Amino acid sequence: MRIEGAGCEVHVELGARSYPIVIGAGLLAEVGPRLAAAGYQGRCALVTSERVGALYREPVLASLGGAGFSPVAIEIPDGEQHKNLAWLAVLYDRLLDAGVERRSPLVALGGGVIGDLAGFAAATLLRGLPLVQVPTTLLGQVDAAIGGKTGVDHALGKNLIGAFHQPRLVVVDVSTLRSLPRREFVAGLAEVIKYAVIRDAELFATLEAQLDGLLGLDVSVLVPVVASCCEHKAAVVAADEREESGERAVLNFGHTVGHALEVLTEYRRLRHGEAVAIGMMAAARVSQARGLCAAATVERLERLVRRAGLPTEIPDDVTAPALALAMQTDKKKAAGRIRFICVEAIGRTRMVELSAQQVAEQL
Amino acid sequence: MRIEGAGCEVHVELGARSYPIVIGAGLLAEVGPRLAAAGYQGRCALVTSERVGALYREPVLASLGGAGFSPVAIEIPDGEQHKNLAWLAVLYDRLLDAGVERRSPLVALGGGVIGDLAGFAAATLLRGLPLVQVPTTLLGQVDAAIGGKTGVDHALGKNLIGAFHQPRLVVVDVSTLRSLPRREFVAGLAEVIKYAVIRDAELFATLEAQLDGLLGLDVSVLVPVVASCCEHKAAVVAADEREESGERAVLNFGHTVGHALEVLTEYRRLRHGEAVAIGMMAAARVSQARGLCAAATVERLERLVRRAGLPTEIPDDVTAPALALAMQTDKKKAAGRIRFICVEAIGRTRMVELSAQQVAEQL
Repeated sequence: MRIEGAGCEVHVELGARSYPIVIGAGLLAEVGPRLAAAGYQGRCALVTSERVGALYREPVLASLGGAGFSPVAIEIPDGEQHKNLAWLAVLYDRLLDAGVERRSPLVALGGGVIGDLAGFAAATLLRGLPLVQVPTTLLGQVDAAIGGKTGVDHALGKNLIGAFHQPRLVVVDVSTLRSLPRREFVAGLAEVIKYAVIRDAELFATLEAQLDGLLGLDVSVLVPVVASCCEHKAAVVAADEREESGERAVLNFGHTVGHALEVLTEYRRLRHGEAVAIGMMAAARVSQARGLCAAATVERLERLVRRAGLPTEIPDDVTAPALALAMQTDKKKAAGRIRFICVEAIGRTRMVELSAQQVAEQL
Repeated sequence: MRIEGAGCEVHVELGARSYPIVIGAGLLAEVGPRLAAAGYQGRCALVTSERVGALYREPVLASLGGAGFSPVAIEIPDGEQHKNLAWLAVLYDRLLDAGVERRSPLVALGGGVIGDLAGFAAATLLRGLPLVQVPTTLLGQVDAAIGGKTGVDHALGKNLIGAFHQPRLVVVDVSTLRSLPRREFVAGLAEVIKYAVIRDAELFATLEAQLDGLLGLDVSVLVPVVASCCEHKAAVVAADEREESGERAVLNFGHTVGHALEVLTEYRRLRHGEAVAIGMMAAARVSQARGLCAAATVERLERLVRRAGLPTEIPDDVTAPALALAMQTDKKKAAGRIRFICVEAIGRTRMVELSAQQVAEQL
């Protein structure tokens, strides 16, 4: 991590597809100059949601215009229900109408829906436009905007249609978190805690010590914590860009049960991070039941998750058989077996191949 | 090139994404065993068109079934008008209904429409399924099925939506060319002549000497000629997988004017190869006018193109200004300049940056 003025910079090392993540407060104004410095010019597109656009469209457009670009802004209505093929087609139409060419950058400004949808449009229009991710949610800043996953939902499941398309640049402006609904911010903390559990005992201790500063959006806490998460995501992605060799599977800690809970509650009752928080607790309990970790580890995780304001228990109306079935239909399974990420100690995991039944039984 | 029984094998060298192209007569039966030998199993999908399916679906399904796969066949109506987002959505639905998983192979059996559409579905469903191309047109066998270009059309232009997705295997069965309409076969010869012009004077001489055998679908001529083309395509793709460094631009010889002619005649009057044949003659004449090649080279090319039964002249009703405008809106231009591939001698080209006007003026 390189400290630079008020922010820091993390690099995702992927050979010819390497890119920087810049993290700091008040960085929206840097989007234009950094893109220009990377050699782009002319037409560019800013894709955002209506809510985020109302807040941050103008500073980003001003930054792009000031750097010599001719930006066009395209807004998508807010909500996951717009992350589908129909809105993708609308986005293609508007981008082509705006005259984008193969070297025209597409700047995705917003949360996960915008990052995924605009990212997939960038992956597939003219066989690939240069993409800049400017995430405005904590989940986007520490996870979704890094690593090249893009996609849209299908009636049969989320993110079933998609592509890997690495951005050229990720700009993380933690100031934008001030406008994020409290519940969204807290949900994002689940992914922060996840990185600490799977890879970074020191970060876990920092979270325990500085949780109040984090919850208070104290920039001096937020910037290094978010940057640590970006470093972890960058390292895992660099080791396993396309989820092929297995290293990237560690990021699924808490997500096997979490995804199943989201499906069973129809993506309405739980935010993604809330489901992941419950999923992490479930994974920790499975780990303990299999003799892989101590009870104290589970308890320590549970204390932090609770203090963050996140849920820890599977809802009463979700049954073990339903959970097993939902885990079985997740797209990441290989030949019926689930690569389940267990915790051995804070900062250390182990991958265990289990059936969905074996997971559900121990919850 | 490795000669092996009745056929030969060419390798596309792309590191972890390398794959073989097998070329021969009667190879449809090899699809299943080769996929199984590559480590795949279980569910797989055969995507084909109604016309090609009626001819070759059964032997391919038998080959897959015999190798232990559970294949499902999905047919798309014939015709470029089905290479769009709507039919892509239908294909996604049917593939998901069939229960494909991330390791389920998708076999694309047919011409360019099937290869592009099914290839793009494979590129984007579950963020990428293993793809096998089994091209049944000469254009597909020497060009479209190799190199990973996939995509669908948009109302504003062909192939505007797409992705690079390398196949795991390409099976070229020249026997399938017997059922190809004569005009399609001849159109495909334009791409064969193109490889000879841009990279292979020896192949050009072979074509001059053995054109009758080729037009008579003599397997002893067809297999080595098709294999030579596959070798050239493989070498260019290996040097410039994603059209970034410029090497792949050489494949656009004849295509700048060719694409423009296709657009201006609304893709109705000319087959792609016919437009390319006219485009190659146009490029040769531009080359001669700029002093880059001898008149004898243009004449030699013209003789072969004519003997193959391909057109050589721009239609009378296509004007130079219309051509210039159409070339200018092609998606491959960089900042308004066209990377125009000129010929210096048979087997040797030179890239020249020209404006669309400069090209059109000299025709």
